[in-house]
Amino acid sequence: MRIALLGGTGDIGEGLALRWAYDTDHEVVIGSRDPDKARGKAEEYETELDSRGQDVKVTGFVNEMAADRADVVVLAVPAYHVTDTVEAVADTLDEETILVTPAVGMKKDDAGFHYNPPPAGSVTEMAADAAPDGVPVVGAFHNLPAGRLADLDSDIDWDTPVLADDADAKDIVTRLADGIEGLRPLDAGGLANAGEVEAVTPLLINLARENDGLHDLGVKFW
Amino acid sequence: MRIALLGGTGDIGEGLALRWAYDTDHEVVIGSRDPDKARGKAEEYETELDSRGQDVKVTGFVNEMAADRADVVVLAVPAYHVTDTVEAVADTLDEETILVTPAVGMKKDDAGFHYNPPPAGSVTEMAADAAPDGVPVVGAFHNLPAGRLADLDSDIDWDTPVLADDADAKDIVTRLADGIEGLRPLDAGGLANAGEVEAVTPLLINLARENDGLHDLGVKFW
Repeated sequence: MRIALLGGTGDIGEGLALRWAYDTDHEVVIGSRDPDKARGKAEEYETELDSRGQDVKVTGFVNEMAADRADVVVLAVPAYHVTDTVEAVADTLDEETILVTPAVGMKKDDAGFHYNPPPAGSVTEMAADAAPDGVPVVGAFHNLPAGRLADLDSDIDWDTPVLADDADAKDIVTRLADGIEGLRPLDAGGLANAGEVEAVTPLLINLARENDGLHDLGVKFW
Repeated sequence: MRIALLGGTGDIGEGLALRWAYDTDHEVVIGSRDPDKARGKAEEYETELDSRGQDVKVTGFVNEMAADRADVVVLAVPAYHVTDTVEAVADTLDEETILVTPAVGMKKDDAGFHYNPPPAGSVTEMAADAAPDGVPVVGAFHNLPAGRLADLDSDIDWDTPVLADDADAKDIVTRLADGIEGLRPLDAGGLANAGEVEAVTPLLINLARENDGLHDLGVKFW
C-alpha cells in the first residue's frame, strides 16, 4: 500500500513514516508544501533506516504529488492547516483514497493545555467536511507522542483509537496501525465520537508537564 | 483519616469504599440521602470485607451526618446531583474539610457517549463553584470503571489524574489515591484542566462498546 504523509517532514509525520517504513512493507511517501524539504527529509529517513539495516526507499514530493496515486493520505499537519491541505490535494483524491487525520486543536492558558475544537465539533470532523464528496475519512493516531514514536530505539506500547463512518476505510487504517509494532488500534466508533479522542492529547501534555519523570506520554486503555 | 463517601451506596462510591476499607486504615463512612440505604450498604460492605478476613467497621448515615466531622468528603453522586449534594452538606464543611469530586457529565447519541460539560467548564469546577468559600476542592477518580473497582478479586492497574488549586489538599488526596493498591495518582494541574480529564470517561465507554473483549476500562498513561 502506498501511504502519503502530508506534512511528513515533522512531528507526528516523522514517527509514522519511520515506523511504517521500518515495521512494514508499505511504501512511504513524504509530502510537504516545500518539495525540497520533503526530499531532504525523505533522504534523512532513508539514512536512519539504512543505519538499522533496512534498505527501503522513502521519497519526497510537494503535497499534491505525494497524495497523487497514494492509497492512503495522512494529514500530518497542524489543526489549522488541515482544511487548506485537503483543499490543496483535493483533485488527487477520489473514493479509492482514504484520508486519515491525526490532528488535534489545542489552546494553552496559565493552567495548561486545553482541547479547543473547531465549530465542526472536532478536527477529525472538520477534515471530513473539507474532503471532496465520497472520499472516506478516518481519524487515527491522535494521541501518540511524536518524539518517542520517531525514536526507533524506543519500545512503544500504546493504543490508538480509530474513528470512521466508512467501515471498509476504518478496517484498512486499523490494519495499517496494527502493522506498527507496539501500537494497538481500537475502534472508537464513528467520526462524531472524535472529540473525546482528540481531547486526550492536551491531557497527555498536562500530565507530562506536572509530573516529574513523565514526558512524551501515550495512553493505554484496559 | 475519616472519608465520607456521599452517594457511597452505588457505582463509583462502592468501589472507593471497599478499596479504602480493604487497602488502608482510613475510616470509611457511607452517605446517602436515605439513611436506611446508607446503613444497609455499609453492612453489605462490612460483610464483603469480613469474608476476606478484614474486620473493619463501615458506617452509614444520611449525607449531612456522613459529611459532618469527615476529613475528606467525596461527592460520589451523578453530575446532576453534585450541586444539590454540596448544598445539602454545606453547613458541615469548613476549610479543614477537603471536598473531592469524581463526577463526569455525559450525554449519549446514536454515535456513542459524549462529554457534556456544564457552563462552569467541567463538573469539577461546578463543584468548586458550589462549595462554600474557603473549602478546598479536588478533582480525582474520574476515569475509574466502577464494576472492576468494586470487585476486590479484580487486580487493578490504573492512573487517576488529580486536579486542585490548593496544593495541600491535592497532596492529601494524592496520598489517599496512592493508598489504593494498583491506583497511581498523577498531577493534572489546576481545576481549570478538569475538562480534559473528565472527557476521558465517555471515551472509555465508547471503546468498551465498540471493541469485543474490552469492558469496564480504565486508563494508563506512559
